[in-house]
Amino acid sequence: MTGLDTPAGLWVTFEGGDGAGKTTQARLLEEWLRDQGRTVVRTREPGGSEVGVLVREIVLHHRGDVSPRAEALLYAADRAHHVATVVRPALARGDVVIQDRYLDSSVAYQGAGRVLDAGEIRDLSLWAAEGALPDVTVLLDLDPGVARRRLDADDKPFDRLEAEREEFHERVRAAFLALADAEPERFLVLDATRPADELAAAVRERVGATA
Amino acid sequence: MTGLDTPAGLWVTFEGGDGAGKTTQARLLEEWLRDQGRTVVRTREPGGSEVGVLVREIVLHHRGDVSPRAEALLYAADRAHHVATVVRPALARGDVVIQDRYLDSSVAYQGAGRVLDAGEIRDLSLWAAEGALPDVTVLLDLDPGVARRRLDADDKPFDRLEAEREEFHERVRAAFLALADAEPERFLVLDATRPADELAAAVRERVGATA
Repeated sequence: MTGLDTPAGLWVTFEGGDGAGKTTQARLLEEWLRDQGRTVVRTREPGGSEVGVLVREIVLHHRGDVSPRAEALLYAADRAHHVATVVRPALARGDVVIQDRYLDSSVAYQGAGRVLDAGEIRDLSLWAAEGALPDVTVLLDLDPGVARRRLDADDKPFDRLEAEREEFHERVRAAFLALADAEPERFLVLDATRPADELAAAVRERVGATA
Repeated sequence: MTGLDTPAGLWVTFEGGDGAGKTTQARLLEEWLRDQGRTVVRTREPGGSEVGVLVREIVLHHRGDVSPRAEALLYAADRAHHVATVVRPALARGDVVIQDRYLDSSVAYQGAGRVLDAGEIRDLSLWAAEGALPDVTVLLDLDPGVARRRLDADDKPFDRLEAEREEFHERVRAAFLALADAEPERFLVLDATRPADELAAAVRERVGATA
């Protein structure tokens, strides 16, 4: 990766429950890639585009209840717009896209955790994104009880999803692990209780081998 | 339909291009049904629920471009929420739901008029609504040139969809007529150039036979 060649675009997503350390690892990976001269686009779903910010507002903070299919469709709308207007253009420029949550979160949270079929949620997301899948997906796997204590320590107010009960988070964790099992070539599964610098090294090794 | 029996719910949708007279006919039908002692819920898509108002805001008035799949998914999200929280509860109470635009508009405008496949749009809408279809759909069919002159006469500002070119509206009209051809038992197709009172009588006849 010299400055003279246009590098190929690279798309890395971080998945896992809240409190697993996705933001920290995304930041460390971004710093390492920038040091190598890569242009990095840090983004997230929901909320990584201007339309997505509005969708995120509806889904996470709407006071009334949002029906399950409406919620799934709003996430998918955010995804469609975000992939079309942020991810694809960045990859076409040869940038690295580092993204907090993608379709695996939709499948794990809505499919496994709610009343909807996981396969339908996945199909909906893939239709939205015209089939786009990341080069690498890092799953930061963490026991929900540990995650909860980490979030409590931060003393942040919980949003609607975070307030769901622990059993729900157990089902989400199992769904993430099942997704990783089904696509071992895309997923890197890491034990999120390991020290942040060890995790960062493992992420760099995998991303470096892909880039 | 006496006041002592709980009448069965009835769902009537009005379809057609802007300027075809949907609002006038919906109002006349509502008055007639109220005179008969029915409880009427007047609603619309997009925007017939609290979530829908936000979705409508994004789709119709967002200054940037919304990607086609994102737009289709936002309409479907509005539909899912609206059917689950407004239409189904009203029908369960035995009310009459009179609705301005439903999935036929999505298929006609997005499918036939845009870059997406009409069958995919219909499947998406039906998934959103868990298969719900109206008892009667009134299509007010009008030549787009005539519609345009009606809207010009109103001197209202055009929103984004209204500003699309006339050729687009010709394709929408053809798509509506094709949908009506495919489901003659659900659709009542009326020539929207006929006087409003004649149209209202035709709508009453059809709805009265169904209710």
